[in-house]
Amino acid sequence: MALTTPRTMPGTLELLPREQIAFQSMLDTIRRGFEVYGFLPIETPAIEFADILLTKSGGETERQVYFVQSTGALERAPDQSGRPEHALRFDLTVPLARYVAEHERELAFPFRRYQMQHVYRGERAQRGRFREFYQCDIDVIGKDSLSIRYDAEIPAVIHAVFSALDIGAFTIWLNNRKLMRGFFEGLGIGDGEKQALVLREVDKLDKRGITYVQGALCGEGFDLPNHVVAEILAFVQLRSNGLDDAHRLLETLEKGNPSHQAIPAFVEGLSELREVLETVAAFGVPESAFALNLSIARGLDYYTGTVYETTLNAHPDIGSICSGGRYDNLAANYTKSTLPGVGISIGLTRLFWQLREAGLVKTTDSTVQVLVTQMDATQMPACLAIAKELRDADIATEIALEGGKLGKQLKYADRAGIRFAVVAGEDELARGAVAVKDLRRGDQFEVPRAELVKSLRAELAKDEVQRA
Amino acid sequence: MALTTPRTMPGTLELLPREQIAFQSMLDTIRRGFEVYGFLPIETPAIEFADILLTKSGGETERQVYFVQSTGALERAPDQSGRPEHALRFDLTVPLARYVAEHERELAFPFRRYQMQHVYRGERAQRGRFREFYQCDIDVIGKDSLSIRYDAEIPAVIHAVFSALDIGAFTIWLNNRKLMRGFFEGLGIGDGEKQALVLREVDKLDKRGITYVQGALCGEGFDLPNHVVAEILAFVQLRSNGLDDAHRLLETLEKGNPSHQAIPAFVEGLSELREVLETVAAFGVPESAFALNLSIARGLDYYTGTVYETTLNAHPDIGSICSGGRYDNLAANYTKSTLPGVGISIGLTRLFWQLREAGLVKTTDSTVQVLVTQMDATQMPACLAIAKELRDADIATEIALEGGKLGKQLKYADRAGIRFAVVAGEDELARGAVAVKDLRRGDQFEVPRAELVKSLRAELAKDEVQRA
Repeated sequence: MALTTPRTMPGTLELLPREQIAFQSMLDTIRRGFEVYGFLPIETPAIEFADILLTKSGGETERQVYFVQSTGALERAPDQSGRPEHALRFDLTVPLARYVAEHERELAFPFRRYQMQHVYRGERAQRGRFREFYQCDIDVIGKDSLSIRYDAEIPAVIHAVFSALDIGAFTIWLNNRKLMRGFFEGLGIGDGEKQALVLREVDKLDKRGITYVQGALCGEGFDLPNHVVAEILAFVQLRSNGLDDAHRLLETLEKGNPSHQAIPAFVEGLSELREVLETVAAFGVPESAFALNLSIARGLDYYTGTVYETTLNAHPDIGSICSGGRYDNLAANYTKSTLPGVGISIGLTRLFWQLREAGLVKTTDSTVQVLVTQMDATQMPACLAIAKELRDADIATEIALEGGKLGKQLKYADRAGIRFAVVAGEDELARGAVAVKDLRRGDQFEVPRAELVKSLRAELAKDEVQRA
Repeated sequence: MALTTPRTMPGTLELLPREQIAFQSMLDTIRRGFEVYGFLPIETPAIEFADILLTKSGGETERQVYFVQSTGALERAPDQSGRPEHALRFDLTVPLARYVAEHERELAFPFRRYQMQHVYRGERAQRGRFREFYQCDIDVIGKDSLSIRYDAEIPAVIHAVFSALDIGAFTIWLNNRKLMRGFFEGLGIGDGEKQALVLREVDKLDKRGITYVQGALCGEGFDLPNHVVAEILAFVQLRSNGLDDAHRLLETLEKGNPSHQAIPAFVEGLSELREVLETVAAFGVPESAFALNLSIARGLDYYTGTVYETTLNAHPDIGSICSGGRYDNLAANYTKSTLPGVGISIGLTRLFWQLREAGLVKTTDSTVQVLVTQMDATQMPACLAIAKELRDADIATEIALEGGKLGKQLKYADRAGIRFAVVAGEDELARGAVAVKDLRRGDQFEVPRAELVKSLRAELAKDEVQRA
């Protein structure tokens, strides 16, 4: 028979079990962080009606959408628009908007949800670009209004989650779109489109450097006086170091631009940013973990207030590993209710891939904690009984049901990252004992058969304590 | 602006947060069961190459496949076969086969994997039929051979998982395809296709009753003598009650059909079934939880030995909630290696939906355990500090950051299924204390501020003990 070459679509990240365990452990850590901070789980279908997904977008997004058709639908004509009826979600925000609008009357507001699912984008195949990737999102959605205190809670969640992930020191960068907008307005750049074009250049600061951005902004397209370009560059380079410094920086900005006091967005932005900084500290986030960064704009148009990015201090090259912000109205396409919100997203597939590239993913331990070895059929019932006890005690246990040479079984356990091997041979059982090999430490001990579970539990508990 | 009606594709199960918590809890329980029994996690991409997914199938499966195309691909011509290049997985077995063949050299055999992901089928929209649903699968894959002991371990996993799910008493039904095949051969029905047709009628036994099946088998299409029909009906109605009864029943079958002793499949099937029964008991599965049911064939052609179904004793109408079996060669389409295996699948979305229909899903508790209430801005820093302590102690905590009337906040907590509300008002804080309302028990107590975490931990631990 002709074989089909087994292969996966480019742009997907398929992992071997050991890597999958590490990935799953990150997912679990993030989920637990979200839950501890009082967010509720939801899941939405991967397939949505295309008209729901594509209401507000167009251009780039639509070109990246995966449309879905069953054989029956393929055989029928597409609808009038010429595109299929269904598509795969490309983010979790549009499905959230649809979800909140659809279930509005059954939800309590502020609605705090977390959602950790795959999203799909028809990216060009390229190293490090994913067509299927996990997003781990939280959002708080208010009805009509939402206290700015929620903007300050978000960095507390980010701090808890990334501390628990234990992938190195990180900084949560804060900015405010109103402040930005007001600042540009004060410089005579009141037009939203022109602001967006300027921000697009500013966004290249980290990658291309200051000289490039200066050159671009002084170019013909922008028609900006030199002193305005200088002020923009000074503004977007502002970074704080500690809470006092952040407040000082905002005060300098305020005093240095007295004419901006007449611009409501500038005044509001300053005031919001000050309150957010104060409240983030009151949430117990250490000063070293958050800072102002007035270059942060986030590409998406719908952010209207606080915006966030997070970077690993030792790996600025990875870019932002957790981003988001405040928006005025989540679901204007689906409901007349005004639903302001604030949220963030962690792109875990990309983050995991980058950490792995940087050699920062630990894939040493299996989820399996014990291998019960098998010598010959006579001892099998005793071995099965041992395994049952261990499993009933919530100790993850595999049994070497194929049997074979003990050395081979132990080698397998060692390679698989299984820490303990239980040997219950004729001799041991006759003594009412079993032997336990600790493959990590490379030693061995014998325990009375009746104390095996207690003894292994104690060893594994030591491990837990060391890890915590 | 014209609104788009928020709605989901028919055939998807979208849950409110309280239901999602119950669903997630079932997923977690199943996953923990799989891990404790030594299975390793994998995930595969939802989108696969269509030629990979559709190698062996045809007909019904292909008609139900969802094809996937990005806008760019839609604009290009489809490939020669006239169908798109990519499609969504319709089960987890074909992706497993592809995975094992693709990563064969990097995996250790027997390869024990669990996988819990959505699958997609273009079913006709109908109540209780799902186009997107979770499958929770385990399989053990051997290289060249796989001990029949693994066939006996599977019911041990099923027993552990469904006991932990706590959805009522259940029975794991066992049969063996070789025994069936040999029995039919012994009756002169040696042709595989004819056997399949007979089995299709037999499969209707539960739904249509014995008279219907008898009528069908005596009909013209089958051309079977009456005594053969009688023997088939007697065979497929065999059910055991306890281990001794199962062995007695197999002995009666053996003795009652002396001429079948010349048929290898019959002899092997009997021997395998006996060994599986013995070993399932040795794994510690109680006799009341498993039984023979010689009507079980499982539709899929690729099962070749042991087959399983599981039913809830109080809800036979729900049908099998966990099914599977032994197969000779998993990945013949993708590799020349012989990979025998045994596995089962739980269709969790359908099961959850049916349990919910039967009123068996508990959606009382939120994942949030504590609401820290807010009275006025003065106490806010104290409240944020309390919340931080609780969260650092892994107690899931929400803060009523919007403030408002205390009564309204308590009502929210009660409705949301949050058990405790912490009230840290001016009076309490002045006394160095906080008030805790237990909304489940409907009482209230005051604790010293410094002992809040300890006290709540103790209350929550009591809860854990009660549940376990």
